[in-house]
Amino acid sequence: MHTISHYQELISDYFSELHLTKEPKNLYNPIDYILSLGGKRMRPILTLMATEVFDVDCKKSLAAATAIEIFHNFSLVHDDIMDDAPLRRGNETVHEKWNINTGILSGDAMLILAYQHFEEYEPKIFRDLAKLFSKTALEVCEGQQYDVDFETRDDVIIAEYLKMIEYKTAVLVGAAMKMGAIVAQTSTENANLIYDFGLNLGIAFQLQDDYLDAFGNPETFGKQVGGDIIENKKTYLYLKAIEFSQPQEKEQLLHLFSIQPNDSSDKIISVKEIFNKTKASEATQKAIQDYTFKAFETLEKMNISNNKKTILRTFGENLMSRNV
Amino acid sequence: MHTISHYQELISDYFSELHLTKEPKNLYNPIDYILSLGGKRMRPILTLMATEVFDVDCKKSLAAATAIEIFHNFSLVHDDIMDDAPLRRGNETVHEKWNINTGILSGDAMLILAYQHFEEYEPKIFRDLAKLFSKTALEVCEGQQYDVDFETRDDVIIAEYLKMIEYKTAVLVGAAMKMGAIVAQTSTENANLIYDFGLNLGIAFQLQDDYLDAFGNPETFGKQVGGDIIENKKTYLYLKAIEFSQPQEKEQLLHLFSIQPNDSSDKIISVKEIFNKTKASEATQKAIQDYTFKAFETLEKMNISNNKKTILRTFGENLMSRNV
Repeated sequence: MHTISHYQELISDYFSELHLTKEPKNLYNPIDYILSLGGKRMRPILTLMATEVFDVDCKKSLAAATAIEIFHNFSLVHDDIMDDAPLRRGNETVHEKWNINTGILSGDAMLILAYQHFEEYEPKIFRDLAKLFSKTALEVCEGQQYDVDFETRDDVIIAEYLKMIEYKTAVLVGAAMKMGAIVAQTSTENANLIYDFGLNLGIAFQLQDDYLDAFGNPETFGKQVGGDIIENKKTYLYLKAIEFSQPQEKEQLLHLFSIQPNDSSDKIISVKEIFNKTKASEATQKAIQDYTFKAFETLEKMNISNNKKTILRTFGENLMSRNV
Repeated sequence: MHTISHYQELISDYFSELHLTKEPKNLYNPIDYILSLGGKRMRPILTLMATEVFDVDCKKSLAAATAIEIFHNFSLVHDDIMDDAPLRRGNETVHEKWNINTGILSGDAMLILAYQHFEEYEPKIFRDLAKLFSKTALEVCEGQQYDVDFETRDDVIIAEYLKMIEYKTAVLVGAAMKMGAIVAQTSTENANLIYDFGLNLGIAFQLQDDYLDAFGNPETFGKQVGGDIIENKKTYLYLKAIEFSQPQEKEQLLHLFSIQPNDSSDKIISVKEIFNKTKASEATQKAIQDYTFKAFETLEKMNISNNKKTILRTFGENLMSRNV
């Protein structure tokens, strides 16, 4: 097995040969721009890693890994339009640097380009990859729609929220790993287990993101701590707090999530107090642990060496302690 | 071979079983809406027809035909956002009835849904269909980008214009027919010839659309006659008029295409006079004939019965005389 930085290097080399400086420039330059902003390349790394776990050269899954990363960036370009976000990875978003129409059309082209990378594989593998990709991509769209719908609903329940983050975020992590397994041509059982590993780790990671958004260390979290509270986002923490709160706390929380003061410091402090007092923060940490445990449990069922299991487990632990 | 109305019925029946009234409703209802607005279903009809030309039951290509029609509607949804169009087939556009974000996300889901319809086929055919589909879909995006780019350029040449309409419109007609051939598992040569037939017919049809926009019968054309002139659209007619015009006419035409008067009747009359005087209208009719001839020429090279050739030729003639 190789190191994360070796995988990153492979991906970076592969990306540098994608030749995206084609005509019409107004279509391809934005694609080249967003893909070169980088990011941690977590999803394609997982694809390469999954292939190696099943004893096949990880270079074989570079094309599938690239499809996953291009799709992820496609979803960022279109989501950023929908959220009217000005910045992505510290740089201007595509629709901000060009315009909304360019964001729409370049995004569309990226979704198609992603599929084209599966053409590197023989028919049977091509079909399996494209089929999993379509199913996953559609779920990501559904997850995004649920996220949009939740903004204007005040009766979202925990089960719906979990389904939303599963679709919007976790299925792509599961699919990234399963694609590595498909390229390696391992058993269907192994492929499904590594999907479940990625899926549950993805849910745990997203729940932790919710938690750290309120309770994370501002110096290491990467995003603005309290951002979700400022935007009145109904995260797992918030939904659990509503569920567990006494009438008076509930009223206070509903009020705090109906205002958008210029200076949010007091609001953030009050909301976090309620998150702690209602034990919503405890419940969130418990959920993170449960999903992480579930991910590690599926590892045990896989038909691979203990050495490989330890590598995947260590990667999961590093991911959850945000050391990756 | 069946009649056009039989093909239309098959497609309509197939569409009625797509079950698009799924959750989340805000994602799927707009898809159901745009697909049920109808249209002539010209592209999927061509797919079914192509399969039958090669002596295979046209029902076998219903899934591929559906992919083509869903893709076509996807491109309409996103193009209508980009053009800020309020109406489509006499009804509100998706982004007008819902909002821009819904138009973007539902469109994305349609592009993915289109790919899923190829999953009905075995790996080899699946791969061939999806590969042709990706290539074509990317060309359609490129064509749309060229069209957008041309709006702000004043040095567009005829060759560029032809490439634009080829990509934006004609490749999908060619691909619709070739998919029918792929499903029928005919020879590669036959498949490529029927692609060329559709491609050239598609170019001829689009050039005729340009011509009829200025010189068509308002009662039968279906769109507002003079619409391109009102919008200062650089069509084949306009580019040829610029090419053929004397300095004074050219200056007049450039002026007319720089204004947008409230009442366009005089402008339309003057522009049409220039189109006639410069023989741009004649040159356009010639080009329409040339591309139609080219389409019929490829028919002759195909390894099918004369009876089948006649059917395709008659269909082409009906299409060009706008009787279909």
